[in-house]
Amino acid sequence: MNSTKRLWQRGEPAYGAWLSIPSSLSAEAIARAGYDYICIDLQHGLIDDASCSEMLVAISATEATPFVRVPANDFAAINRALDAGALGIVIPLIYSVGDVEAALSACRYPPAGTRSYGPVRAAVTHADYFARANDEIACVPMIETREAAEEVEAIVSLPGVDAVYIGPNDLSLSLGQAPGMDNEGPYAHAYEGVAKACAAQGVAVGIHANAELAPKHVANGFRMITVMSDVGTLQRGAARELAHSKRSG
Amino acid sequence: MNSTKRLWQRGEPAYGAWLSIPSSLSAEAIARAGYDYICIDLQHGLIDDASCSEMLVAISATEATPFVRVPANDFAAINRALDAGALGIVIPLIYSVGDVEAALSACRYPPAGTRSYGPVRAAVTHADYFARANDEIACVPMIETREAAEEVEAIVSLPGVDAVYIGPNDLSLSLGQAPGMDNEGPYAHAYEGVAKACAAQGVAVGIHANAELAPKHVANGFRMITVMSDVGTLQRGAARELAHSKRSG
Amino acid sequence: MNSTKRLWQRGEPAYGAWLSIPSSLSAEAIARAGYDYICIDLQHGLIDDASCSEMLVAISATEATPFVRVPANDFAAINRALDAGALGIVIPLIYSVGDVEAALSACRYPPAGTRSYGPVRAAVTHADYFARANDEIACVPMIETREAAEEVEAIVSLPGVDAVYIGPNDLSLSLGQAPGMDNEGPYAHAYEGVAKACAAQGVAVGIHANAELAPKHVANGFRMITVMSDVGTLQRGAARELAHSKRSG
Amino acid sequence: MNSTKRLWQRGEPAYGAWLSIPSSLSAEAIARAGYDYICIDLQHGLIDDASCSEMLVAISATEATPFVRVPANDFAAINRALDAGALGIVIPLIYSVGDVEAALSACRYPPAGTRSYGPVRAAVTHADYFARANDEIACVPMIETREAAEEVEAIVSLPGVDAVYIGPNDLSLSLGQAPGMDNEGPYAHAYEGVAKACAAQGVAVGIHANAELAPKHVANGFRMITVMSDVGTLQRGAARELAHSKRSG
Amino acid sequence: MNSTKRLWQRGEPAYGAWLSIPSSLSAEAIARAGYDYICIDLQHGLIDDASCSEMLVAISATEATPFVRVPANDFAAINRALDAGALGIVIPLIYSVGDVEAALSACRYPPAGTRSYGPVRAAVTHADYFARANDEIACVPMIETREAAEEVEAIVSLPGVDAVYIGPNDLSLSLGQAPGMDNEGPYAHAYEGVAKACAAQGVAVGIHANAELAPKHVANGFRMITVMSDVGTLQRGAARELAHSKRSG
Amino acid sequence: MNSTKRLWQRGEPAYGAWLSIPSSLSAEAIARAGYDYICIDLQHGLIDDASCSEMLVAISATEATPFVRVPANDFAAINRALDAGALGIVIPLIYSVGDVEAALSACRYPPAGTRSYGPVRAAVTHADYFARANDEIACVPMIETREAAEEVEAIVSLPGVDAVYIGPNDLSLSLGQAPGMDNEGPYAHAYEGVAKACAAQGVAVGIHANAELAPKHVANGFRMITVMSDVGTLQRGAARELAHSKRSG
Repeated sequence: MNSTKRLWQRGEPAYGAWLSIPSSLSAEAIARAGYDYICIDLQHGLIDDASCSEMLVAISATEATPFVRVPANDFAAINRALDAGALGIVIPLIYSVGDVEAALSACRYPPAGTRSYGPVRAAVTHADYFARANDEIACVPMIETREAAEEVEAIVSLPGVDAVYIGPNDLSLSLGQAPGMDNEGPYAHAYEGVAKACAAQGVAVGIHANAELAPKHVANGFRMITVMSDVGTLQRGAARELAHSKRSG
Repeated sequence: MNSTKRLWQRGEPAYGAWLSIPSSLSAEAIARAGYDYICIDLQHGLIDDASCSEMLVAISATEATPFVRVPANDFAAINRALDAGALGIVIPLIYSVGDVEAALSACRYPPAGTRSYGPVRAAVTHADYFARANDEIACVPMIETREAAEEVEAIVSLPGVDAVYIGPNDLSLSLGQAPGMDNEGPYAHAYEGVAKACAAQGVAVGIHANAELAPKHVANGFRMITVMSDVGTLQRGAARELAHSKRSG
Repeated sequence: MNSTKRLWQRGEPAYGAWLSIPSSLSAEAIARAGYDYICIDLQHGLIDDASCSEMLVAISATEATPFVRVPANDFAAINRALDAGALGIVIPLIYSVGDVEAALSACRYPPAGTRSYGPVRAAVTHADYFARANDEIACVPMIETREAAEEVEAIVSLPGVDAVYIGPNDLSLSLGQAPGMDNEGPYAHAYEGVAKACAAQGVAVGIHANAELAPKHVANGFRMITVMSDVGTLQRGAARELAHSKRSG
Repeated sequence: MNSTKRLWQRGEPAYGAWLSIPSSLSAEAIARAGYDYICIDLQHGLIDDASCSEMLVAISATEATPFVRVPANDFAAINRALDAGALGIVIPLIYSVGDVEAALSACRYPPAGTRSYGPVRAAVTHADYFARANDEIACVPMIETREAAEEVEAIVSLPGVDAVYIGPNDLSLSLGQAPGMDNEGPYAHAYEGVAKACAAQGVAVGIHANAELAPKHVANGFRMITVMSDVGTLQRGAARELAHSKRSG
Repeated sequence: MNSTKRLWQRGEPAYGAWLSIPSSLSAEAIARAGYDYICIDLQHGLIDDASCSEMLVAISATEATPFVRVPANDFAAINRALDAGALGIVIPLIYSVGDVEAALSACRYPPAGTRSYGPVRAAVTHADYFARANDEIACVPMIETREAAEEVEAIVSLPGVDAVYIGPNDLSLSLGQAPGMDNEGPYAHAYEGVAKACAAQGVAVGIHANAELAPKHVANGFRMITVMSDVGTLQRGAARELAHSKRSG
Repeated sequence: MNSTKRLWQRGEPAYGAWLSIPSSLSAEAIARAGYDYICIDLQHGLIDDASCSEMLVAISATEATPFVRVPANDFAAINRALDAGALGIVIPLIYSVGDVEAALSACRYPPAGTRSYGPVRAAVTHADYFARANDEIACVPMIETREAAEEVEAIVSLPGVDAVYIGPNDLSLSLGQAPGMDNEGPYAHAYEGVAKACAAQGVAVGIHANAELAPKHVANGFRMITVMSDVGTLQRGAARELAHSKRSG
């Protein structure tokens, strides 16, 4: 079910794309480009649960693993994304070990957690869903607050954390820096700390990035690297094509 | 209201983008990149009237002129796009002068045509809409069949044709060639004929293209040049970013 | 099923409201104000089939008869509106007796017409739908072109025409006048001709109007009088409330 | 791409389901039950193009072949369904050989037909789409009018007709009978004529049916048999479960 | 307004259906089959607030009482469902008396609770809504955790609890058993405890069930018995019809 | 960006409209009537995030400032409304200074608050968004509980509170009175207290009102006065037009 977890188990990097546009057409077009995972962003994207469901259907038909970033560390939101067929959950704005424990509990059926039973679409799509869900679903807390960065060793030693995911903009802001994808100073220090803690525990480490930064992150041991976003690609592409069109012939 | 018609009146080229994704977010992101017009494709795009209306709202808030390619040369479809706020209509699959006359009639209120009165959203957005609509709305028949290419001189001499728009793929197919954006042979011959007929009549000439081909078309006198599409930009961008990410560092 | 037809059979006027906003909430709010019929406008309103279906559900739960103005005199559009539960069809842009015959045929099951069988929602809502549909459904061609106005006597003598409906704006335009709800001259002459032809045949006569004009139309024998529209009421109400708010106390 | 055409080429029957509910969840749930094809009904179903696209995505992810019944024998509607990924088109209300020729032309790219180029989603989903489309797409005219039944021999001898599909309710109505799935008399006579003409030409013959009637149709050589519909299954299931619940224990 | 509460007041069982498909068509089709209540599932169903509103409109037009299971015991979610016209609220994942007190407070206007005033659609549909809401709305906490089962006596003695509703799958999981609709052992013990506590307090007792189990539950005094679900009925029906079709004739 | 904040800074009243209908057409029609702000109500309106985004696009194209009332004082809901382009947030059901501090934190990027970075649509629409957002966005807690009314002095002295907004119906209920827009007694006392506290701190004071009450509120120093709502205007307008139509001529 979850080929991204297979990559992590083999120690290989997974490359991903990030979706903010509520459209199954753009989701499918991107998913078929060869990404290992596609993450539907319910936090900052303009995507609601109805669109998310359609996009999960589109991604399910491809090789990519469907992830959802939930709008908050909210039990119901996590359950709804999973019931709709997400195989990975990215949880924003983690502040503490307790936050991670809550997220883990929402991702797993008892006795491992407290997820509620009712995989309406997930069980339509995946045979034997209930038996496999706890193993196949990836629970990925974000490290994007100073507090979480400071507790990262405790966080990654919690059983069931499949990966953590650095949010560079929010982590920079939380550390008193401007938003940035690859800041120096406190951010760089935190980045190293997260990578080191994950390496020590054998937990995959991920980050919101771009193609330019990807090789650096891979070299630093990252195994979940988001390298494109739909809105960014459209905006930059629109500007670039227009400028290129107006060049002198 | 229609800055693209102003460009044509001054003999300057208008650069456009083409939308197939049903999303006002992607429409707005592209429209703000500086295009002169944005065309919502109801023929081949996965966009229905409801999404089209939302996308027209998004484009209306920018400098770009909102165009709609209707799904067919259909009176009701043209009227609905105009009532929703389109300021330009691209009409596919024209075969004859009679087809163009029907399209023109649908685009203009009496006595110039037979458009039905009821500009529900258009009159909300534009003060004095009824008085200005016939002048401001661009009616753009496509030249994408052999038959239309052969009749192009008669077509562009019809009063009220603001521009014609070449569809290279369909025109190539209609002429017995493979789909292509810049074919040689019969297609190239037809392309020249259209450009020449428009030049003779002072009608703007347009074409579905890309950034690579744009300077050539401008040099050939084209004044309506579509140089990017949402799906294409996403697909190519997704592939490029992924490949770039996996390069050796 | 169709209380508006009962009013017409008793020679009483039916008062209606006109919907252009794609929302079942506004539809329900208006339908519960006591109107005899509510007409969903698929021609000039920003309403597509999906919203139309939801609005028909909302209206079905009230006393008002659900009408749909189809976007064109199109067999499939008429059938879809009926299958979704419309009990009256208003057909725009009639030019001839032949146009009306086509509309009538689309509204009735064989042998009276050629409507296709498949009342998916209509049969869910109405027991015994097939047996009653031909009698209960109102077919209402519009008189809004010069050509139709000239042929109105022949039109209203066709068996199965339940009412005709004057579109004052388009009829005025078609007669060479400015859009208007109550023009003098050719429009007034045509108005009288329609009323007279309907009276002679016992066919209900209707008109797009407003509250101000309603008593005049009733006095002239009209039995289907649309007196409010959602967008107009909102626009005027918004302006009035704002002005009233800013008055000196 | 089209496993249903493979069945027909092997002379085996294809079993299908019929969708009127605008939901990709119900589409996916039914498609995964093992049907050979799933037909989205845009004629009588409450499904518009936007929902159709989402449902095509859902069906694409299963083994079933996605069919669409278009709302009418309309060039643009057929093109839109194909561009969105339909691999079979069922065309209602055929009256003549000319109607079938128009449908065939809309289904095939030149030179076989006049389909317009722009497979926005289809080319995302299927590699090499343009090269394979003309062969893989099934064009299935309906035989549901007296006129078509009388011309069936000419219809099935047109090159490119993959199958024809009997609509028992409309065919019965057209022949002066009550709607029915398996009427005697003129309907039975027409049914036999269609089966015989198809057998003679090696064209697959299909019919709107149910599980009860399926074996009879298979025995009569039918190779496209729709045996369930979403709304019917829900309605009967809802009634049956309620009655069963209230039984004495 | 709430015929299900009338049944409970008379000590009679109410039979219900459960909706996970976001469609007012399937909602209406099922509601008209004769169920006493229809519950829209916002927790595990693929239904968001927009679809829920349309489905409430559809159910409002029938005899069935519209219930909503909210996604969580969340004040805003409960208020939104009520404002949209729900007459009963099922609250999942209750763990304590405090949880039930919060749910009750969200369901009732002051002074009985803290529900916020703004019944936008509810007041459109129901005359005199504010005066009657507190009496007519059913507040139904779920018993589906070990903790709630242990506190059931305290829960059902809270004033304002109209019924409780057992979730057999989650309750089984919470008690260390596999999901099941009618497990033995700890689940059966809890089931009996809930029934007994409700009987002692005169509170209606409900359960998620099926037609097979319904008579047993009625015999045990249950008064709110869900006996069908849309997705389950479609899935089983699709498989059954296909198998039945393929039988030898 | 935020012309309403400019009015407040100059000590002038801002007049607003309130939206409960999920439609960008009604939003645009009202916004163009000249209101200073338009508030999309996600608490009691039938509007979800998807419709809210489209409505924000429509309002953005006008002079009016787009406000959103979030469904609850919820960090994720506030962030989503801001990312979609809201320039003002109205927060319901404030009970304490702590509630306001949480709302303020959600509205501001660090270091002023903890808003998460990702202004997907906001940054498309507004150049330089990040640099200006903290200054331009209005954070408006509601005073509609007894508890908040009692703490209003502490609330308005918190840095970053741009305005407070009285909810007369809920505040009346909370104080033991019937819902009302201008009650005497405890409500009137609280109203005066809020106005006085705001005047002392130089914070704008707002209220949910109507045109009739507006001059009184302005005279009392209010600077944010909602004077019309879409549903109310439609309901009253529908009734008034119908009654006016039926008058004797």
